[in-house]
Amino acid sequence: MEANMHIGMIGTRFMGKAHSHAFRSAPSFFDIPFTPVLHTVCGRDNAQLQRLALRFGWKHQETSWEKVVENPAIDVVDICTPNHLHFPVAVAAATAGKHVLCEKPLARHEEEAWLMYETAANAGVVHMTVFNYRFVPAIALAKRLIDEGKIGQIRHFNAVYFQDWLTDPGFPMVWRHDASLSGSGAHGDMNAHIVDLARFLVGEFAEVNGVQRTFIKERPMADGSGRGRVTVDDATSFLALFRHGAIGSFTATRLAPGRKNFLRLEIFGSLGSLLFDLERINELQYHDGTEGTGFQLLLVTEPVHPYMEAWWPPGHVIGWEHTFVHVVTQLLGAIHSGLPATPDFFDGFRCQQVLDAVVSSAASGSWKPIPEITKIKPS
Amino acid sequence: MEANMHIGMIGTRFMGKAHSHAFRSAPSFFDIPFTPVLHTVCGRDNAQLQRLALRFGWKHQETSWEKVVENPAIDVVDICTPNHLHFPVAVAAATAGKHVLCEKPLARHEEEAWLMYETAANAGVVHMTVFNYRFVPAIALAKRLIDEGKIGQIRHFNAVYFQDWLTDPGFPMVWRHDASLSGSGAHGDMNAHIVDLARFLVGEFAEVNGVQRTFIKERPMADGSGRGRVTVDDATSFLALFRHGAIGSFTATRLAPGRKNFLRLEIFGSLGSLLFDLERINELQYHDGTEGTGFQLLLVTEPVHPYMEAWWPPGHVIGWEHTFVHVVTQLLGAIHSGLPATPDFFDGFRCQQVLDAVVSSAASGSWKPIPEITKIKPS
Amino acid sequence: MEANMHIGMIGTRFMGKAHSHAFRSAPSFFDIPFTPVLHTVCGRDNAQLQRLALRFGWKHQETSWEKVVENPAIDVVDICTPNHLHFPVAVAAATAGKHVLCEKPLARHEEEAWLMYETAANAGVVHMTVFNYRFVPAIALAKRLIDEGKIGQIRHFNAVYFQDWLTDPGFPMVWRHDASLSGSGAHGDMNAHIVDLARFLVGEFAEVNGVQRTFIKERPMADGSGRGRVTVDDATSFLALFRHGAIGSFTATRLAPGRKNFLRLEIFGSLGSLLFDLERINELQYHDGTEGTGFQLLLVTEPVHPYMEAWWPPGHVIGWEHTFVHVVTQLLGAIHSGLPATPDFFDGFRCQQVLDAVVSSAASGSWKPIPEITKIKPS
Amino acid sequence: MEANMHIGMIGTRFMGKAHSHAFRSAPSFFDIPFTPVLHTVCGRDNAQLQRLALRFGWKHQETSWEKVVENPAIDVVDICTPNHLHFPVAVAAATAGKHVLCEKPLARHEEEAWLMYETAANAGVVHMTVFNYRFVPAIALAKRLIDEGKIGQIRHFNAVYFQDWLTDPGFPMVWRHDASLSGSGAHGDMNAHIVDLARFLVGEFAEVNGVQRTFIKERPMADGSGRGRVTVDDATSFLALFRHGAIGSFTATRLAPGRKNFLRLEIFGSLGSLLFDLERINELQYHDGTEGTGFQLLLVTEPVHPYMEAWWPPGHVIGWEHTFVHVVTQLLGAIHSGLPATPDFFDGFRCQQVLDAVVSSAASGSWKPIPEITKIKPS
Repeated sequence: MEANMHIGMIGTRFMGKAHSHAFRSAPSFFDIPFTPVLHTVCGRDNAQLQRLALRFGWKHQETSWEKVVENPAIDVVDICTPNHLHFPVAVAAATAGKHVLCEKPLARHEEEAWLMYETAANAGVVHMTVFNYRFVPAIALAKRLIDEGKIGQIRHFNAVYFQDWLTDPGFPMVWRHDASLSGSGAHGDMNAHIVDLARFLVGEFAEVNGVQRTFIKERPMADGSGRGRVTVDDATSFLALFRHGAIGSFTATRLAPGRKNFLRLEIFGSLGSLLFDLERINELQYHDGTEGTGFQLLLVTEPVHPYMEAWWPPGHVIGWEHTFVHVVTQLLGAIHSGLPATPDFFDGFRCQQVLDAVVSSAASGSWKPIPEITKIKPS
Repeated sequence: MEANMHIGMIGTRFMGKAHSHAFRSAPSFFDIPFTPVLHTVCGRDNAQLQRLALRFGWKHQETSWEKVVENPAIDVVDICTPNHLHFPVAVAAATAGKHVLCEKPLARHEEEAWLMYETAANAGVVHMTVFNYRFVPAIALAKRLIDEGKIGQIRHFNAVYFQDWLTDPGFPMVWRHDASLSGSGAHGDMNAHIVDLARFLVGEFAEVNGVQRTFIKERPMADGSGRGRVTVDDATSFLALFRHGAIGSFTATRLAPGRKNFLRLEIFGSLGSLLFDLERINELQYHDGTEGTGFQLLLVTEPVHPYMEAWWPPGHVIGWEHTFVHVVTQLLGAIHSGLPATPDFFDGFRCQQVLDAVVSSAASGSWKPIPEITKIKPS
Repeated sequence: MEANMHIGMIGTRFMGKAHSHAFRSAPSFFDIPFTPVLHTVCGRDNAQLQRLALRFGWKHQETSWEKVVENPAIDVVDICTPNHLHFPVAVAAATAGKHVLCEKPLARHEEEAWLMYETAANAGVVHMTVFNYRFVPAIALAKRLIDEGKIGQIRHFNAVYFQDWLTDPGFPMVWRHDASLSGSGAHGDMNAHIVDLARFLVGEFAEVNGVQRTFIKERPMADGSGRGRVTVDDATSFLALFRHGAIGSFTATRLAPGRKNFLRLEIFGSLGSLLFDLERINELQYHDGTEGTGFQLLLVTEPVHPYMEAWWPPGHVIGWEHTFVHVVTQLLGAIHSGLPATPDFFDGFRCQQVLDAVVSSAASGSWKPIPEITKIKPS
Repeated sequence: MEANMHIGMIGTRFMGKAHSHAFRSAPSFFDIPFTPVLHTVCGRDNAQLQRLALRFGWKHQETSWEKVVENPAIDVVDICTPNHLHFPVAVAAATAGKHVLCEKPLARHEEEAWLMYETAANAGVVHMTVFNYRFVPAIALAKRLIDEGKIGQIRHFNAVYFQDWLTDPGFPMVWRHDASLSGSGAHGDMNAHIVDLARFLVGEFAEVNGVQRTFIKERPMADGSGRGRVTVDDATSFLALFRHGAIGSFTATRLAPGRKNFLRLEIFGSLGSLLFDLERINELQYHDGTEGTGFQLLLVTEPVHPYMEAWWPPGHVIGWEHTFVHVVTQLLGAIHSGLPATPDFFDGFRCQQVLDAVVSSAASGSWKPIPEITKIKPS
């Protein structure tokens, strides 16, 4: 490693923990051109802030994100906040010349997302959206097989993302139920992932048509102060047409009892098929239609599989958190090479366009096109 | 068994074989109030006709369906023809006072279906549509669990039906590719099943919105005379709203490489979930959300499970064809009791309404309501 | 079909039902050189006898097996009795010149089995042991793949057969718990199947070494008259060496809670592997080691798969009972061709040698060889 | 964390990497009473040594294990060497007053293992054998369910451990093929794990009886210098009797094509059953026999599950390496509390007794008892 790269991370909860671990672990397994230094962690919950700093060795603690963004010692700003802060933090960080890593969904709506992208692109910084499921080895292998033409032209892309943590009507209001903070519910949180995977594996969307539901309209306030109104969707389903002719079906819900983090892809092409299930993250099922035989269960733990040479011998499975190690490896490599990171804020914006079009279609009951748009040329 | 019930069957192919076996086998396993007599089989392919007659012991052969319908010796007309003949045969048979069993989809469109229903209802005969998957023990068990309230109020009903036999562009034109004979493609053949299962398990549809695709637009003629234009869908996906508030997602395709006869249901309720996969026909997965534990894989082969006491000891699995044995048992029981059979032509008509609304929605790009309608009162 | 073949069946319970169905159904699906006529069914439970006769159309009923064996109108004697009657019935039937089909295990011990084989061989009749799992299409496909060399030289053959119906200590004594009637417990009932499959798929056994346990030593009498002592094994496990160098592991138990009829094979060769699970009877898993890829799940329902062309289109699964249809098709074909049936009484005897050697090894705590022996030359 | 605990690790390969990661990561996720300091890493392959030191931040490098053991700055010696070095390093380290963590199998034979245990026990240091699969959350949950009596009295414990990396006869000789370095092959490497899990979950062994095979007797030397003779087993199968009455079946092989790291447990008790498969490390199947229903697939990622509160939300799966984090957490906790670690060297010794008895039984063809023995009382 040639030099240090100082990280400032905003957010101390679930994603703060996952990102902290990733920055700490990446150099142990991958050749990284920089040493990531866990410089400053920022949050407003003091106990949580101290805990995270102590646990992962963050050198400094901060309660104002503005100070992190302005700190000249920091090279990379990593945004793990609730969704409504993605926009101001990312714009400020990029403007201040920091490289920016931002959790998904990139923003609450496409206008925010475009401004984030535009600002970062014009600032010439490296920007990346944490669509971490692109970095699951089995999904990266699916991408490789598709790019090699193994399943031919894709005709069907069916994706679902099922969780059950909101099935209990007694589960309290959190920021994720408030549209002003989160933008949307299952849609932005979960469909964002499968929309991105669709763009990654199939290509651009042409049109979408969806339906949204809030099955449980009120929830108890976490502080016991009565009940609050849920202003986001519990579930969103939509159909999609892709530019290259495939049709798609998508459903995200947080009211699927028994499903914890179940993301399934079913991809059917003219020559073969691919199946994936996130709860069995190390497996990919592949049907080679030219052989006319059954689905193969590929245990994606071989050295020839994406990312896996860095980890353990065949059959020694990895977990969910490893995807973030791959994300930060990609980010730091992009900073070093001067090439764009992938997926970047443009991908975050494009995903947001699809999500917004689904919302619009659900409101109007009609198909909504996804406008064509081109990337900003680097100046 | 008290008396004979003489069957006249029109159609000698796949369904003719399945129905023949069912009529022959039912009395060996179930208490049936009549002895079904395989009286006359009717078809236009003479070799096939003779073969079927010989194989299953049909006493008479006939090439004109009109003669079967008019034959006073025949009590039940069983329609296993291509779809365009369902209407004339069923109407003639009911008018002639025969009980009528008809394959799905009941008709090519809802107008035909209504006339079939109306005729049969007014004639006072027993009528039944062969939605045989209601008679899978695992699905009948799902119905029982739903009726007992085990999964609470249903919020999601996701169903797919995947086959791959049309993936090969060299597969020739058959009647199923000609809209004038079949009415539709994957939609009427396969979505008919999952639409009926949705009505069986969830209840009536309120609105639908879909998309249809013919990926392979021409196919070689079977007789070598050039190429023909495919006038039906290869694949149809649609979203649905149910009257009682659930949302649904449906996809049928014949271009899913590696999937042979894969019908999957995923049903999420307020208290639990149910999963079913037709290729593992003896299994039902059930999650009891009130226990907060995992999905149970129920091997539906216990005497307490629907239909299974008639068959074999626990763990001795049954197959696809057994569903037809259950169908004819139900039919003959209804004839004896004087009570309606279920599912009857009204169910066939209601299913057709949903299918037609999907076609209409796909053409217009908008949601289509399913009109309310009531059954004809028995006179 | 050229002529009739008159069947006399002894036994009216589980196997009587399965065999009755098989004889009735076989001509509907397979080209059979004879019409099997369900001539006489024989049993001592009068209600059950009448019921079976009525259900399957047996023309005559009989309570003395001797009369069946002596009846000149009968061509084939089918033995579905408790195990202790296999020997006297089979010997008498063969001596009377009848072809004989006998359930497994062929006998209570190898001496009986040898005499049965010797008698039938010398009588020149067709004899067959109902090792019906050889006739599962997935297992027949496994045999084909092995014979084609697809998995190379076999090194490991691991087989288990798990049921749970005796887990409940309140389950009463039945003939299967009495060694004088059944010969043994799980061993003869269940290991018989997997020993035969090992001979079918791998080849002859060289040595075995096992352990037997009766976990529940007493059970209530079915008639309420106190408790009886269980004189057979609840479970038997053994290791095996095969002549050609493979090693094997076998376990049969009736005390495996949750397992209903779970027979699993795991076969590892020098070039690939095969896996089978009877509760998913239509599936075979195949790993082609030369490709270095995953296990393929083959849905064994294609016309190219053994027996399947006779049944339904791909993906339309069959059940457990179909194996008996294949058995009787084989039997009637052998009678017509004059060639031996497979598996015959020699196979039943060889299986019994292995079973007896396991019992002996369990008693002595040492390995027991399986003697070489040759078939009787047809005179 | 109160103080530092300085680690000296011997061995730089697969296990060295896994342990390094574990010491680095444990304090990020668990409350650990010490800060583990990666003080010295020791190995003879200089490139590998430097690489590991750089990757994981080991402060010092050493090529002589004796110097590590003698270094007064080091508190814990972690042994990740080939098996023949376990004994001298562990004895020297314990004698020098170091706490000792040692990979499995603890030794090449039980005499070594006993001396290691005796030395460590008498030295009063904390000693622990890395049977890391006890620390799989699903297996820890199985242990909890068993201890709670959920499956009653255990009757069957069937375990297999399948890998395929030696199927290729061209795979070269490594230290694992040389009995003088490794002690044994699949037996010590893989059966060690499942023997330990049997002791953990069922209890002590009473007798064993096994068979061992070396299917590929020669392999090319890694340096191209001809071929070497394999002096260890490729595969070992054995039967076991447990003190409390259960029977067991065990197979380990490295010649199971398509199986990468497949460790399966099947445990049947008087009241229920448990199933586990290491390639699906986050899943446990549980059958509650008192409910008479199916197997539940428990996704072992809930906060109430062992170890999982420390990691991620439900459904966010962990991998193989996490087990080592749990191991070192246990070790450091034991050092702090002054209580013994579990599993300790006594467990390593007991496992070795079973392994040695299997080898002896395979040589003699007879059952071998496992002697009773008691732990050394702390002085």
